[in-house]
Amino acid sequence: MTRQVRCYDCAETYGIDDRKRCTCGEPLWFETDSSSFEWPDEEWTTGMWRYADVLPVTDPVGVPPGTTPLVRAARIDEYAGCRLHVKNEAQNPTGSFKDRGTAVGVGYAVQTDRDWIGTVSHGNMALSTSAYAASAGLECAVFVPADTPVERLELIDRHDPHIFRVEGDYGRLYAETLALETGVWFINSDTPLRVAGQKTVAYEIFEQLHPAEPDALVLPISSGGQASAVWKAVRELESAGLIDDVPRLYFVQAAACDPIATAYRNGESVVTPVVADETIAISIANSDPPSGTRALVAARDTGGTVISVPDNEIRDAMARVATSVGTDVEPSSAVAVAGVRRLSRSGDVGADDDVAAILTGSGYKERYDAEVDSRTIDLDDLEQDLASVVGR
Amino acid sequence: MTRQVRCYDCAETYGIDDRKRCTCGEPLWFETDSSSFEWPDEEWTTGMWRYADVLPVTDPVGVPPGTTPLVRAARIDEYAGCRLHVKNEAQNPTGSFKDRGTAVGVGYAVQTDRDWIGTVSHGNMALSTSAYAASAGLECAVFVPADTPVERLELIDRHDPHIFRVEGDYGRLYAETLALETGVWFINSDTPLRVAGQKTVAYEIFEQLHPAEPDALVLPISSGGQASAVWKAVRELESAGLIDDVPRLYFVQAAACDPIATAYRNGESVVTPVVADETIAISIANSDPPSGTRALVAARDTGGTVISVPDNEIRDAMARVATSVGTDVEPSSAVAVAGVRRLSRSGDVGADDDVAAILTGSGYKERYDAEVDSRTIDLDDLEQDLASVVGR
Repeated sequence: MTRQVRCYDCAETYGIDDRKRCTCGEPLWFETDSSSFEWPDEEWTTGMWRYADVLPVTDPVGVPPGTTPLVRAARIDEYAGCRLHVKNEAQNPTGSFKDRGTAVGVGYAVQTDRDWIGTVSHGNMALSTSAYAASAGLECAVFVPADTPVERLELIDRHDPHIFRVEGDYGRLYAETLALETGVWFINSDTPLRVAGQKTVAYEIFEQLHPAEPDALVLPISSGGQASAVWKAVRELESAGLIDDVPRLYFVQAAACDPIATAYRNGESVVTPVVADETIAISIANSDPPSGTRALVAARDTGGTVISVPDNEIRDAMARVATSVGTDVEPSSAVAVAGVRRLSRSGDVGADDDVAAILTGSGYKERYDAEVDSRTIDLDDLEQDLASVVGR
Repeated sequence: MTRQVRCYDCAETYGIDDRKRCTCGEPLWFETDSSSFEWPDEEWTTGMWRYADVLPVTDPVGVPPGTTPLVRAARIDEYAGCRLHVKNEAQNPTGSFKDRGTAVGVGYAVQTDRDWIGTVSHGNMALSTSAYAASAGLECAVFVPADTPVERLELIDRHDPHIFRVEGDYGRLYAETLALETGVWFINSDTPLRVAGQKTVAYEIFEQLHPAEPDALVLPISSGGQASAVWKAVRELESAGLIDDVPRLYFVQAAACDPIATAYRNGESVVTPVVADETIAISIANSDPPSGTRALVAARDTGGTVISVPDNEIRDAMARVATSVGTDVEPSSAVAVAGVRRLSRSGDVGADDDVAAILTGSGYKERYDAEVDSRTIDLDDLEQDLASVVGR
């Protein structure tokens, strides 16, 4: 497959090893000819590697990401205001959607005989990259904001990477790592290899629903890398003749940090950084998203929008998913479900729409100082204590 | 499919609703005629439900468990002393192998119009049962030892079950809940419905490896329910003519709490309770295993053994898996890999043996007060700080 990467905006092309971003300033992605792509015969047990025909790397590395469940979540239809399907990316090997891009990025590093891999992350991507580097025997450098919670670092450290806590602007850190000449191959969140891997989630959603099709896809957005990947997948599947109607793409941010939604609301054509407030959705609190403008184009191009939701709605959605779908997701994932509710209330999404929300990451990596609702009983009182609760 | 359950030992049969254990005292399991079973055409995206032909419940509930990756973990072959394959059950919906049995148990409760479901657990099973009950709209009662860490309870509580912390003997609690007349349907770890669901992990391992076959399966053991399930699967697959050689079944305990390994070592035919010490493998610290004797028979019947490993070896195996396979598992899962190493050193497992170790649960649900190895740097020093670590 081609090693050429192209700017979605000005169409300039480069070699993958030559540049990380276009001279026009916008991000790049792989040129992929999907015109002859068909749903593969490959077993689903190969995970995302069943889509190797449209990936820049074909040799699996580590535990295969993908083949995550897509479930009809009818019990929260009323809350969501549509026919909701959830794609549970929390079931990937390291508990988040990031593994798809990581596997391609680390696979490329192995294939090109690199010794070091690196990333810049708030947590999930650092964990994923560390784990896949370990599986391939690569050295790994992860750069996180200096104030990243130590609980997140403890999980990352189990895979024994080199952890750098960086004092300074995250957007600048992200950009500067891509320009370093240290022999470390960086797979940051909107780089072409990562976008190539991330797109497989949309391939899976379409194949799992086939021959039905979703009317809309709703996902959280941070850097814009995943949103770009989903857009890329939709374009490729359309080019392959495998989908009839392009779904609307809706991207959702936390209101406390919503530069892309702000640009959308204001009718801007370019996303500019914002000063962020605190939010519980820390995994998507990116105030200077490197693929923000690309995502903005994706939403508009597909008839979607970019919206944001306040923390109280994120908390509520998280509880709804746990108590109605039985899935424990992190706040940054619940953002998607809170977004669906907003979109149905605003009329963007209708009650008969089939909407797929991407649940990007597991709640098990997050801890809260929540009061636990429990009662302590003596074994001798077992039957009467249970009966009193059951009401018999 | 039959609603008859049978004693593996004395062959007495009962209706599933009539008895939880045989009058002889031993546990029951479903009678399953697998003689005409073939590897299914069903898509792997249906998870364990693709084996509905050999399950007592056929209607899926909640997020489908199963279709977890089976990975050749060549990077720890030298450590393990064999050709190691790992089955990553941590990627099930609630992060452990328990979801398979829970889905069948909750499915049965739905099918028979029950309102309440219950379980007795150290954590994983309580979490799993709470999540699936939530997905089905059932009320759920979970009984845990009074000293269960609050961090575990906080995860369980997210699905809003009724949590009972019980002061008193765990073995007695386990048995007494099965005899209660409160309208709560208990799916404890070695009950027939749970064993039926749990067996699908072995079906998957064999189908994923097919036409190759594993020489041995190695798994942690606590109540003996999962071990019984794997044994049941092997017998059923043999009856179906789908495997040529029955694999040796090896079960591994933590040395601090190893009643089944003790019985095996002492040549006993029955497992008796032990007084347990503390271990980091708290999920499998069952000093009075209800299916211990059945598991003992399974090991002997297949040419396997039951062994135990000390905590330092469990810790070491956990780190090896994280840094060589890229998978973060809980101590109770690492027990299996530590066991493989012991078995290869004792000569039970050979260097050319294909051995599948079941990694039962995710490490993300566990927290340790570990020192995080990181360095804090200033963004302005990025290149020189990274270069000094890389050594360029």
